[in-house]
Amino acid sequence: MSQAETTRRIGVALLGSSFMGRAHSRGLDAVRTLEDHPAAVPALRAICGRDQKKLDGMRDRYGWERTSTDWRALVEDPEIEVFDNAASNHLHAEPTIAAARAGKHVICEKPLGRDAAETRKMLEAVETAGVLHMCAFNYRFLPAIRFARELIERGDIGAPRQFRSRFLLGSGAVPGEAETAWRLRRETAGSGVVGDLLAHHVDVARYLVGEFTAVGGATRTWGPQRAGVEVDVEDAVVATVEFASGAIGTMEAARVLPGQVLESAVAIDGSEGSVTFDVRSPNELTFADARGSTTISVTAPEHPFAELWWPRGHGIGWGDSFSHELRHFLGAVAGAWEVAPHGATFLDGLRCAEVCDAVLAAATSGHRTEI
Amino acid sequence: MSQAETTRRIGVALLGSSFMGRAHSRGLDAVRTLEDHPAAVPALRAICGRDQKKLDGMRDRYGWERTSTDWRALVEDPEIEVFDNAASNHLHAEPTIAAARAGKHVICEKPLGRDAAETRKMLEAVETAGVLHMCAFNYRFLPAIRFARELIERGDIGAPRQFRSRFLLGSGAVPGEAETAWRLRRETAGSGVVGDLLAHHVDVARYLVGEFTAVGGATRTWGPQRAGVEVDVEDAVVATVEFASGAIGTMEAARVLPGQVLESAVAIDGSEGSVTFDVRSPNELTFADARGSTTISVTAPEHPFAELWWPRGHGIGWGDSFSHELRHFLGAVAGAWEVAPHGATFLDGLRCAEVCDAVLAAATSGHRTEI
Amino acid sequence: MSQAETTRRIGVALLGSSFMGRAHSRGLDAVRTLEDHPAAVPALRAICGRDQKKLDGMRDRYGWERTSTDWRALVEDPEIEVFDNAASNHLHAEPTIAAARAGKHVICEKPLGRDAAETRKMLEAVETAGVLHMCAFNYRFLPAIRFARELIERGDIGAPRQFRSRFLLGSGAVPGEAETAWRLRRETAGSGVVGDLLAHHVDVARYLVGEFTAVGGATRTWGPQRAGVEVDVEDAVVATVEFASGAIGTMEAARVLPGQVLESAVAIDGSEGSVTFDVRSPNELTFADARGSTTISVTAPEHPFAELWWPRGHGIGWGDSFSHELRHFLGAVAGAWEVAPHGATFLDGLRCAEVCDAVLAAATSGHRTEI
Amino acid sequence: MSQAETTRRIGVALLGSSFMGRAHSRGLDAVRTLEDHPAAVPALRAICGRDQKKLDGMRDRYGWERTSTDWRALVEDPEIEVFDNAASNHLHAEPTIAAARAGKHVICEKPLGRDAAETRKMLEAVETAGVLHMCAFNYRFLPAIRFARELIERGDIGAPRQFRSRFLLGSGAVPGEAETAWRLRRETAGSGVVGDLLAHHVDVARYLVGEFTAVGGATRTWGPQRAGVEVDVEDAVVATVEFASGAIGTMEAARVLPGQVLESAVAIDGSEGSVTFDVRSPNELTFADARGSTTISVTAPEHPFAELWWPRGHGIGWGDSFSHELRHFLGAVAGAWEVAPHGATFLDGLRCAEVCDAVLAAATSGHRTEI
Repeated sequence: MSQAETTRRIGVALLGSSFMGRAHSRGLDAVRTLEDHPAAVPALRAICGRDQKKLDGMRDRYGWERTSTDWRALVEDPEIEVFDNAASNHLHAEPTIAAARAGKHVICEKPLGRDAAETRKMLEAVETAGVLHMCAFNYRFLPAIRFARELIERGDIGAPRQFRSRFLLGSGAVPGEAETAWRLRRETAGSGVVGDLLAHHVDVARYLVGEFTAVGGATRTWGPQRAGVEVDVEDAVVATVEFASGAIGTMEAARVLPGQVLESAVAIDGSEGSVTFDVRSPNELTFADARGSTTISVTAPEHPFAELWWPRGHGIGWGDSFSHELRHFLGAVAGAWEVAPHGATFLDGLRCAEVCDAVLAAATSGHRTEI
Repeated sequence: MSQAETTRRIGVALLGSSFMGRAHSRGLDAVRTLEDHPAAVPALRAICGRDQKKLDGMRDRYGWERTSTDWRALVEDPEIEVFDNAASNHLHAEPTIAAARAGKHVICEKPLGRDAAETRKMLEAVETAGVLHMCAFNYRFLPAIRFARELIERGDIGAPRQFRSRFLLGSGAVPGEAETAWRLRRETAGSGVVGDLLAHHVDVARYLVGEFTAVGGATRTWGPQRAGVEVDVEDAVVATVEFASGAIGTMEAARVLPGQVLESAVAIDGSEGSVTFDVRSPNELTFADARGSTTISVTAPEHPFAELWWPRGHGIGWGDSFSHELRHFLGAVAGAWEVAPHGATFLDGLRCAEVCDAVLAAATSGHRTEI
Repeated sequence: MSQAETTRRIGVALLGSSFMGRAHSRGLDAVRTLEDHPAAVPALRAICGRDQKKLDGMRDRYGWERTSTDWRALVEDPEIEVFDNAASNHLHAEPTIAAARAGKHVICEKPLGRDAAETRKMLEAVETAGVLHMCAFNYRFLPAIRFARELIERGDIGAPRQFRSRFLLGSGAVPGEAETAWRLRRETAGSGVVGDLLAHHVDVARYLVGEFTAVGGATRTWGPQRAGVEVDVEDAVVATVEFASGAIGTMEAARVLPGQVLESAVAIDGSEGSVTFDVRSPNELTFADARGSTTISVTAPEHPFAELWWPRGHGIGWGDSFSHELRHFLGAVAGAWEVAPHGATFLDGLRCAEVCDAVLAAATSGHRTEI
Repeated sequence: MSQAETTRRIGVALLGSSFMGRAHSRGLDAVRTLEDHPAAVPALRAICGRDQKKLDGMRDRYGWERTSTDWRALVEDPEIEVFDNAASNHLHAEPTIAAARAGKHVICEKPLGRDAAETRKMLEAVETAGVLHMCAFNYRFLPAIRFARELIERGDIGAPRQFRSRFLLGSGAVPGEAETAWRLRRETAGSGVVGDLLAHHVDVARYLVGEFTAVGGATRTWGPQRAGVEVDVEDAVVATVEFASGAIGTMEAARVLPGQVLESAVAIDGSEGSVTFDVRSPNELTFADARGSTTISVTAPEHPFAELWWPRGHGIGWGDSFSHELRHFLGAVAGAWEVAPHGATFLDGLRCAEVCDAVLAAATSGHRTEI
């Protein structure tokens, strides 16, 4: 019995032809290579963007059947079953809502909306439409993060007590590594490093530690001008956080630090032990207790996603998390499993947006802000 | 010309016979071994505490000339030129003030007082008495921290932008590693991890980044009972911090985390580069810029304190910072150099106490607190 | 002008449906996704193996147009321009030689033959046939290894003085991670860890340091029975090596060490500096000189292969080296560049086999063996 | 009951006023500070060397009662019970033998003699004299090495299979870090990095893995002139080694590598797990098995030497191993324990010398050399 007979082929349209458009295209293209009998594989129907030359290149490279510069046409297309939104933030809400209303299952890059209010409209739309929905928090699909969840669920770290995360980039400070202008403007991005970077760790924290209850924070804009625009969003954020479990923590993000390439690290200390993750070693998780600090290569047969890849010790890259993520959503569409809890739903996207808004509000007011 | 002819011998009395009493005794004893022609070496006149058996042991081990259980007698002793207070926090103010009034130069363990108010009295006393004074922040005397200051002063990291520190212990969570009861009670300790651990990093931050302007924070007490007492101080703290330079940061400390042995790390990202330090590698400093992240063995001839020790690559231990620190104060008493800027004065101790108090106030009020 | 108009499509047949068959399939499939205007992309004409069920699965996953269980038919197929041999070692020589004689360009997994003698026949065949040939040493296509070559060529480490490598696995010692039986028998594998693991580092050493002149060595077989067969090849090897440049070094490999997951590390110390690489951090290279040890994230725009991937800091995985490798060979077939020096030719494969044979001979004789 | 009543004071004379003379002086001076009731403490009777100014400085710093420039007088001195030889290699045999014949217990720096033949004479002398003897291999007195022995003895790594060590320095390549001339000449040093560096790891290997049975090797002299002399000893060595247990391994040492500060690392892989040590992290040992790689802070109450120091997490420095070592020998003289197995005897020194000689012989002959 071949894959052709048992695997559903699901028509997908993608909005976005830049960094995330490439990451999703490559992820979609690679879904079929992951295992013998996937629940579903995508049919790459159409890619949509504004730059025809870029779209032509992506059609050639990733095998998109056709290109489009009009997302409105795509959301009505009966060949499309899943609408994947990897466009810039200000193009998340309207096309995604329209697709949902047209009955498409939708997956959208983070942050969903530019703030919690816009995100709430997106959640309402998908719930009204009754379609499946997922927010593309790809960290949940890194083997080490999924394995951290397993360790925590089986009690290895006990009750969470202290959390810390940092997401630090230098790209805004290195000449020649042009930042994208839309990310530097409130109108197009909603926020700066809070929505772009901190949001990833807020979602990881919710996935591993649980709900936030209060935050405090401070921000800085180092700007003033980069990528040809006046920066009007925050370039740096620091925050204290409190969780329903009683745990407390620190979070921070920045993107104008030349001494940082890309550090994205999360750690949780509990009453019995600790787990630590850094995306620079995406195939490793560190677990520590009173006996010592153990680095685990999350590539053994018993580890998450390992069955989709190579023998033990042969790690995957950051970009491969997108294949896991898109396979997950397509599998949910095919009925093989639910989006939640391992995929982030639009409700998760909203909860994250509420925390992000609260951090920004706290930075402005100087007061601890309840979620 | 031998050491005997050119080196001043300075009579020292020490108050304290526990962890810090041992660290100071060993540090004092080792000062004379550090180099050929020290400005001053201590004469270990008297050690003072409550437990005669412990005092006898310390006399034998460190060569104290005599023991005492009455600090009041010592502060009047004409043989004593320097009074070194390594007792528990509630015994910092009164004996130190009495010693200063008696004209002794004073060095006192951190935190000076149990809060800023008590610390201010100590500062007033030494200023009134006109004696030399130093707060025993030993991190300033680790080669890597001193070298970080050199790098920052010569502009290698540019303007500071982001700061982070964490001081994480598991001792309160590991059966058999008894905590000391006085550290767990507000009356004797003043505060919990804020004064005990965070204070170290507050001082390092002031030494490397400059003055604080505002803080936010949250605390937790995981207690309830340890070391035979009801814990009424905080076991964990998280904070956001802001500096006069415009930099922002996160700080945290904890001591009931079984997954942590002792991590004490500080990092500063600037507009040109970053420096990172972790006391687990006390002979290393990491400097990073857009070219990469460079681990420097701070043991070469050109590095701070290296002339006092071994050839390049042969590192020293945490405890050796106490020799550096006490040599520094004795050298100041002998007129070889000033206490500031490399030694922390009582004014530095007060500034640190004000930041610590503000963190605790912010944790209670939920409001950003100005310093 | 789209990819379709300017990119050559080159018909490829693949022999092999196990670990390396999968790695090559995925690598071939991903070549087209690497950049806008590749010199050539593969047309995946046929995959050949013995197990029809596995072949069916691979056709579905990687898009092979057809399957075959008879490699003899494939090497005559006019649609096939490149023959890619990823079969087990005893199936390297005969099919590859036949393909070359039929005028196919050939790429073959390492080790080419089971010993130098068999490898020499393969080299003679491709030279006689006048076809392009490449030995699939994929380490040359990891960004950090290519970048190490750049650093060395521009003189950063000076003259090489000392080399070390270790390739250490635990798979033979972990129940449930079945080794492949053919790798454990001399008849099918030629040798054990020497051809399987050490050969990778021999090639890297030749690529970065230059030719070997002499070796010494010792081996062990920990066997006795694994994967259902009597192990008659070496499970562990240690060697001393000498280079034409005057440098000396140590090398070792093993696969029955439960404390090792997969460590594959190479280091070269020169008269001016050192470089170090470990495949567990495939996106990093460490360069050290008297100023310190600098970890470089080999993901910036100026680094090898970076233009084919993501923005700085987003690393790739081990498996992605196969896309680089196969893109390189296809590009050479299309005339865009030469196979050498960055790709290993069959001559490189022979030189490597001679070193491997010499290590085994030295282990038996106890004498330093000249190459 | 004070230390004075129960602790033996043992008269010690030290030969050597350079690097090792300082390390032993400081180590002796610090023995009394290590614990409440030591079995013995040294009385620092006399230090002997050639440079009176240096001797005066050492008397002042370490408290030597008197200085001498004539070792022959010291070995007859009835006040001296222990003769500690920390002089350069060519001054090891004659004074140590004379001291033993005079009935002094002797401790001598490694390597004992300049070769095995000279070392054998030293062993015969101490055995004939019936005095206690110890070879100052200080690595055995680092907490992590002692703890590694505990782990191995209780079976945690199973049967040893593979060993590796490297001892890499840059001091010979860094202008201004003058090497000592006597170390660069065969007449005064016996050998180069083999006796100076490799010998340390040979002893550690014997302590942890057991006896050597055969070695192969190669050496290089990068010279030609350094420290004002023509270098006629090896600057670099690589070796393969075989043990009675069946384990094999690689060893190497070098001291003209500018990319190395001081790396001194040892690893043993066994049939059940692995241990790894690097002197750059002297308070840590790594143990690995199929579950992961665990870094252990060897500072908890249950760890070797921890009772002599600070609470968990507060590490010691390289130099503190000398206090442990000298305390061990003095304790043996006082009858508290035996020199062996934790201290290296002169027989251990001879066994080590035989291995070192065999490595040099193998490098010359090109043949595996049996021990």
